Amino acid sequence: MDSGEVIEHDRPPEYERLGGRALTSTLVSREVLPDCHPLGPCNKLILAPGLMVGTSAPCCNKLSIGAKSPLTYGIKESNVGGRTAYRMARLGIGAIIIEGTSDHPHPHVIILRSRKSQIERADDIVGLGNYDLHRKLQERYGPHAAILSIGPAGELRLGAACIISNDTDDHPGRAAGRGGLGAVMGAKGVKAIVIPHSRAEKNVKPANPEKFKELAHDFTEYVTKTRAAMTKWGTSVMVDIANGLQGLPTRNYRLGSFDGAERINAVALLKNIEERDGSSNVACTPGCPIRCSNIYNDPEKNYLTSSLEYETICMMGSNLGIDDLDIIARLDRASDDTGLDTIETGATLGLAMEVGLIEFGDGEAALKLIDEVKKGTIMGRAIGGGVVTFARIMGINRIPAVKGQSFPAYDPRTFKGMGVTFASSPMGADHTAGPVIQGRKGLDTQKEVALTDPTVQVEVSRDLQVLAAIIDQLGFCLFVGPTAKNLGRFADFINASYGWEITENDLLEMGRSLLRTERDFNRRAGISEAADSLPEWVRQEPSEPSGRVFDVDPDEIRNM
Amino acid sequence: MDSGEVIEHDRPPEYERLGGRALTSTLVSREVLPDCHPLGPCNKLILAPGLMVGTSAPCCNKLSIGAKSPLTYGIKESNVGGRTAYRMARLGIGAIIIEGTSDHPHPHVIILRSRKSQIERADDIVGLGNYDLHRKLQERYGPHAAILSIGPAGELRLGAACIISNDTDDHPGRAAGRGGLGAVMGAKGVKAIVIPHSRAEKNVKPANPEKFKELAHDFTEYVTKTRAAMTKWGTSVMVDIANGLQGLPTRNYRLGSFDGAERINAVALLKNIEERDGSSNVACTPGCPIRCSNIYNDPEKNYLTSSLEYETICMMGSNLGIDDLDIIARLDRASDDTGLDTIETGATLGLAMEVGLIEFGDGEAALKLIDEVKKGTIMGRAIGGGVVTFARIMGINRIPAVKGQSFPAYDPRTFKGMGVTFASSPMGADHTAGPVIQGRKGLDTQKEVALTDPTVQVEVSRDLQVLAAIIDQLGFCLFVGPTAKNLGRFADFINASYGWEITENDLLEMGRSLLRTERDFNRRAGISEAADSLPEWVRQEPSEPSGRVFDVDPDEIRNM
Repeated sequence: MDSGEVIEHDRPPEYERLGGRALTSTLVSREVLPDCHPLGPCNKLILAPGLMVGTSAPCCNKLSIGAKSPLTYGIKESNVGGRTAYRMARLGIGAIIIEGTSDHPHPHVIILRSRKSQIERADDIVGLGNYDLHRKLQERYGPHAAILSIGPAGELRLGAACIISNDTDDHPGRAAGRGGLGAVMGAKGVKAIVIPHSRAEKNVKPANPEKFKELAHDFTEYVTKTRAAMTKWGTSVMVDIANGLQGLPTRNYRLGSFDGAERINAVALLKNIEERDGSSNVACTPGCPIRCSNIYNDPEKNYLTSSLEYETICMMGSNLGIDDLDIIARLDRASDDTGLDTIETGATLGLAMEVGLIEFGDGEAALKLIDEVKKGTIMGRAIGGGVVTFARIMGINRIPAVKGQSFPAYDPRTFKGMGVTFASSPMGADHTAGPVIQGRKGLDTQKEVALTDPTVQVEVSRDLQVLAAIIDQLGFCLFVGPTAKNLGRFADFINASYGWEITENDLLEMGRSLLRTERDFNRRAGISEAADSLPEWVRQEPSEPSGRVFDVDPDEIRNM
Repeated sequence: MDSGEVIEHDRPPEYERLGGRALTSTLVSREVLPDCHPLGPCNKLILAPGLMVGTSAPCCNKLSIGAKSPLTYGIKESNVGGRTAYRMARLGIGAIIIEGTSDHPHPHVIILRSRKSQIERADDIVGLGNYDLHRKLQERYGPHAAILSIGPAGELRLGAACIISNDTDDHPGRAAGRGGLGAVMGAKGVKAIVIPHSRAEKNVKPANPEKFKELAHDFTEYVTKTRAAMTKWGTSVMVDIANGLQGLPTRNYRLGSFDGAERINAVALLKNIEERDGSSNVACTPGCPIRCSNIYNDPEKNYLTSSLEYETICMMGSNLGIDDLDIIARLDRASDDTGLDTIETGATLGLAMEVGLIEFGDGEAALKLIDEVKKGTIMGRAIGGGVVTFARIMGINRIPAVKGQSFPAYDPRTFKGMGVTFASSPMGADHTAGPVIQGRKGLDTQKEVALTDPTVQVEVSRDLQVLAAIIDQLGFCLFVGPTAKNLGRFADFINASYGWEITENDLLEMGRSLLRTERDFNRRAGISEAADSLPEWVRQEPSEPSGRVFDVDPDEIRNM
């Protein structure tokens, strides 16, 4: 970004087998000074499609985005759907590395093409929300351009800033949400990355087309069959599940169940969607058969927001004492437009309500605070800085965060394996890094165990972190199942695609090696294993009404 | 503080030889959960006079205050003059440990007496600035009561909040400034600690009174003779020295020399003091023969502030482009009243000026921002959060801080040994932890070396950190000289006082052992040696006009 140049390289042999999160994390580890400031010139923002992206395998078109995080000050990978990864792979682009920055960055747009990618100044888009921005960019670069962009929050370089992607219906509704990567993009002076629709796109050809076709067919059938509930209800099925387990973050994690749950659950959501001519079967990436996402219209049946997912419904619903889906949808829309992670922002608004800055349940007041972020006021910056920064300003010590990043929508006192993931993942508190939603012990046997049993969670979380690290390299969605029995399928896919001969054990080593790379970066960045812990209040304060505390052995977590 | 009880213990044998910083850091290390939140109930605020406090040795009445720091999240000791330590020692109180907290702390006053110390609720002092507070407390508890207190910044639990002590003239002008310890006191619900004047005070009797008397006489003579310039000019002598070396932090550390230096130097300060009937020979603790402090009157010869020291004159003067001592004195007064560390706050205001929130040189605007802290507005909280928190809100990556704490008034690109101290001290960026103002290499030979020579600074800083750690255990002021040749005197003092038989080598081991204890706590708190580094910009951006960068080998620092 210093020179405005785009330099193309062939993929060096040492990076040949790396895709997605493995590629972003390896590049961050090798090329980013571990103790650099995340918003300074030494950080790099790296985008890489997973190894299976662009193929006909189902649910495999995720884009990994990596950098040193301005929230955790450690390594970060956040992945997102949309069309970007699919299109990059079909243009033969293995990764993009955005380097440097200018002291006073102007908004730039990076236009990726098969040849002659370029960086353009575009002063007319400074400060735009993502909705206006995407409209403008589609006018300029053609319909169906794949767009990654930041809103005002990213331009302000705030810790809760995310990178927004348009979805397959061209709404700016999907996000590489966690870790403040939008602030890194903002610090690079990049407002948007656009890949126009192009005839240069080519189908990704597997080494063994026949075998691949057969695998894709079988896996599509498997996924379609086993994820039928997800297709019907979407991610919001988790509202009733978490509420039933008394682990649904409610009113700033004071409670584990929410008396308004039935007004924000999957049934309520689907009812609104259907009555208002929205859509409940939206694919977040091209070719996904699960199609768990949605388009949510307002009572007048006009588009209000898209990709209204469980995390948002909880963090901006029950966690704020808000039981009105229309308000939650408006908070989601405002967050997407401003370029704010709904998880980090929901947790921060929970603190704002706890200290009485606004009242629990007051959605209009919450909307006003998000508008303050868009305007760049000090109040807005305080909110947009994320939960730990906001807590510092307000003198709050009960903070739902690990390594600077807020808990997502699982109370670790009930979802104890998730708590282990929050504590120990190199990503900070991140459910996708090792999603212990069901307890399955033993990578081979996958024996069912209770979510709330403290004695087994370290093993369960460790295995799921490895499985997630594998899936994130391949570009698959986690919803295909981070399970041991899928390992064989993943290996088959890779071998049929690349002509390699890797085994399930090779895959496991790929996952473990990736986690080692990430942990090693964090160590060099000054984050030791002593930081692998949950805040003390989850061990001391019983969740209501379950009475549970987080009671997994802290030493076992640190030594996992 | 949970129970409101005061519990008295005899000093356990294992703590017998520990005083001051050795006692606070050992207690923090043993009793504070390393990964607790500094503002939560598991932290403890510990006050301990040094081993020599209360004796007739000169310059030895410093109080150490320790806790886990809400700025650095590591161990912290900050020491302060005033009468508290002296009076504690004369009442036979070896340490105070303040534990627990309530969720909604009300302002409490702890009254220390020889017997029946107690904790009182005092709702009428909530929110008071330190000036009004001290007036009120002196009315209530008698003149010449020793007072430690927090202002609104501490009540708001902000990272730049300090603990203020009244000086020997009863002005609330001295501060245990660094590390945000005022926020810890605020989190405990303690607004003030008062030791009324009492007839129960007894002279501290040395084991060998004759010997002690002789030592005290000789050391007083030595100190008086060698520190004559300090007595005449005070700490503000450093303005011309640092400016001459081109290492005076100026305009947010962009420059190392200040064109207004002669309007804020010691000559200018003394001229104002003398013309306005102030005082230039004020002792910060009872019985100090150096008397380097001052009382500064306004042009109408009314009291304006006291203890206007070099750090404040630089951080709120040259660092803000302000060359008017009256404005700087008002900023000092406002900071003392609000309970803000002038170093952390000056660095933060420097950032506020750099990003254009207010203009460089605009002292009235800076005063308004401090007033916002007093009012507790979001803007005030953002400023009072300290330099790193403010940077997060403003999206700033060029931050003059290490481990969360701002640089003090020495540019590490010129004061390179000081830079090593900032990087490696367990205290974060803190000049008192190893004050390399002169370069002396070799604990035995003390060979003079250049301040700017990068090859010798690790050794120089390491030795000075050990010497500072010794002085801080004894309760001496650093100005008696953190030099090898004083070690024998210190050993003699201790032996004559306690009847021990310790050697210079024992003293060195006491210093090293203390540093090990502190580093070990930090490791357990998640701060590894990888965090022992300066921000990248001091290595990359040449200081003007010297053109110097910080070029000490980073690995040598980490492995010191």
